[in-house]
Amino acid sequence: SIDADRLWSDILGTARFGAFGETGMNRLALSLSDGQVRGWFEAECRAFGCTVEIDRIGNIFATLPGSEPNLASIAVGSHLDTQPGGGRFDGILGVLAGVEILRVLKTSGKQLRHPLTIVNWTNEEGSRFSPAMMGSGVFCGVHDIEVAYARMDKDGVTVDEALEAIGYRGEHAPGYLPMAAYLELHIEQGPVLEADGSAVGIVTGVQGLRWLDIRIGGTEAHAGAFPMPLRKDALVPAAKVILACESVALRHTPGVATVGYAHVAPNSRNVVPGEVRLEVDMRHPEESGLAAMERDLTEEIERLAPGAEVSVVWRKAPVVFDAALRGVIRRAAAELSLSALDMVSGAGHDAAHLAGKVPTAMIFVPSREGLSHNEREYSTPQQCADGANLLLRSMLHADEL
Amino acid sequence: SIDADRLWSDILGTARFGAFGETGMNRLALSLSDGQVRGWFEAECRAFGCTVEIDRIGNIFATLPGSEPNLASIAVGSHLDTQPGGGRFDGILGVLAGVEILRVLKTSGKQLRHPLTIVNWTNEEGSRFSPAMMGSGVFCGVHDIEVAYARMDKDGVTVDEALEAIGYRGEHAPGYLPMAAYLELHIEQGPVLEADGSAVGIVTGVQGLRWLDIRIGGTEAHAGAFPMPLRKDALVPAAKVILACESVALRHTPGVATVGYAHVAPNSRNVVPGEVRLEVDMRHPEESGLAAMERDLTEEIERLAPGAEVSVVWRKAPVVFDAALRGVIRRAAAELSLSALDMVSGAGHDAAHLAGKVPTAMIFVPSREGLSHNEREYSTPQQCADGANLLLRSMLHADEL
Ligand SMILES: NC(=O)NCCC(=O)O
Ligand SMILES: NC(=O)NCCC(=O)O
Repeated sequence: SIDADRLWSDILGTARFGAFGETGMNRLALSLSDGQVRGWFEAECRAFGCTVEIDRIGNIFATLPGSEPNLASIAVGSHLDTQPGGGRFDGILGVLAGVEILRVLKTSGKQLRHPLTIVNWTNEEGSRFSPAMMGSGVFCGVHDIEVAYARMDKDGVTVDEALEAIGYRGEHAPGYLPMAAYLELHIEQGPVLEADGSAVGIVTGVQGLRWLDIRIGGTEAHAGAFPMPLRKDALVPAAKVILACESVALRHTPGVATVGYAHVAPNSRNVVPGEVRLEVDMRHPEESGLAAMERDLTEEIERLAPGAEVSVVWRKAPVVFDAALRGVIRRAAAELSLSALDMVSGAGHDAAHLAGKVPTAMIFVPSREGLSHNEREYSTPQQCADGANLLLRSMLHADEL
Repeated sequence: SIDADRLWSDILGTARFGAFGETGMNRLALSLSDGQVRGWFEAECRAFGCTVEIDRIGNIFATLPGSEPNLASIAVGSHLDTQPGGGRFDGILGVLAGVEILRVLKTSGKQLRHPLTIVNWTNEEGSRFSPAMMGSGVFCGVHDIEVAYARMDKDGVTVDEALEAIGYRGEHAPGYLPMAAYLELHIEQGPVLEADGSAVGIVTGVQGLRWLDIRIGGTEAHAGAFPMPLRKDALVPAAKVILACESVALRHTPGVATVGYAHVAPNSRNVVPGEVRLEVDMRHPEESGLAAMERDLTEEIERLAPGAEVSVVWRKAPVVFDAALRGVIRRAAAELSLSALDMVSGAGHDAAHLAGKVPTAMIFVPSREGLSHNEREYSTPQQCADGANLLLRSMLHADEL
């Protein structure tokens, strides 16, 4: 079994790359601090006998050879990038648990049949560059590499340039590495496990999502001298659209909808706003529910903000994970006496792309107060260790399949 | 009378300091481009025989001596700073008309009884540093110089540092220059004159204002994994407050209310917003109407966004201009056969501070479509020349008072 203290000290230790405040993380994809933690990850994996390869979108694959020739890898992974105001666990736990598993295998002398590959996927968060889960999407052939390269952050820096800047635009073609199975450990990021009291979640699938960009135009004017009846204030219809997002979600339980980003121009107190840009995130476990939410919101926008430009920048259908691999996790949890709950993931994960390509499953551990994408995000050392042990044992069983 | 072509070519020529796009201006107070246009203004005034003095808040006073000793200055002025998405006329017309008047006096050999002082007031716009009309407020003793020095922009740069950076923290004490009268020419910045068809406006006074800062807190959470009923999304109550501002203004015609600035944190699409900051601008020609608007909005905020922090960062009562000086302007307009409308100013102006200290009045010229704080802001060469000629003649009459 894994060394809980060593895993915990990796979590706290690597948090220095991109830390803010007491416990916050601001390690945006392909930023300098993302480059730093990647360097640490590569070095650590090499120290435990791995070959490290990088593909064209910057995904890092650290592989320990198996005993049987010609078998594809069992892959274990997640992501090291964070939100701008994120925490120390989201994504990070899954990668560091993989590193800890390498150490356990190496020090115990145990060799697997399959190669074992620990993966750090590029830009899972999607905060700096849209869409989220970009690296795994490119790897699985869902996104074209050239399209991904051209995506820009709000300062006009492209993914291509940002990869180049930190030295992580590799040579390997998307999807180059054969995989027999993919397993991901992650924090839940919601309140379900804590409320249920189970030690771990066995993820049955991932809800679908829609990302919409909305641009609402108005006419800049003097805030004191321009009369109310003649105004075209872009922020007033934008406020109505923000409220409509919430009410559309409430009409389609258990759907959720969020306006996480808003930008006002010129954003000066004494100027009637001339433009507002909103970024919307909508999710639902059923494709039909998601389609209904998209239709309702689009209609509401037409009604409340006539002339607004709406573009759906990302549509992802709900995903169901591999039944056999979920069975493997269930058996391993029972062997470890960990209480387990079957549950749908509210958050998106790299595993949701991998599921379209190889047998895939996920393990969740609880998040305190359900908080994530928040500097107060927390899971206990015991919860992290439980998850890592379940990942190790599930991986060992999968190796025998 | 003034040279309309020379005035127009100054307007177009000095617009290169801080220009963007075809006709936009982004010359924030105490920015590099504000420093550039100040240099131009100083040099031009010296070339026409003025002494140039700078006070501690960076107001520039260019003075042509008068024939009678011991008389106080007749001052003419406005401001050369702009909004971030402003136009080429707001404030600028008033200063450049003053420069043009200097040239006319100099070339015609006409000497006034009083000294004539052309003033460029610091930070009239209030976009980078709050409050607006800062330089004239300090000059008139309404704001303490040390308090003004400490005001910060959103990057944490203080007024003091910004003055130092462009070399405009002068030696003269606030209010050092005796003035016999103050006259300001400005574009209207609203649609009243254009609709009325008058050539010029004789401003009877300036409406009062309130500036409120609002901070609404929430809890950052994952936009996919955190259920709707448990959320504390800061942007939802903020949207309600934005709509309440509009409805409070509509209930208090002819009052206006604007949320010109909004900032969402962490401003990432897949994060439930944890904080929103709003900046509100409210105006009304009557103090009682303004007080009612402030009371109503405060109540609405308590109801719609309980726990929100509200601070009133600026309260300014309505101002009435000097009746005798308005009479002087009316007589001069009649002599020039310019149709004139008595009207209240919707926008704030440096003249609104000066009115508390010396006899003060203002002249407006029409704004096309009523647009200002907009790159499309426009007044014709003829309208600018009419305003400058009326300013010149009013000033000559005032000199004889
Ligand atoms: N797990 C996670 O936070 N993923 C980011 C993409 C998403 O918003 O679901
Ligand atoms: N005239 C003008 O635009 N002044 C700026 C201050 C205000 O918002 O009234």
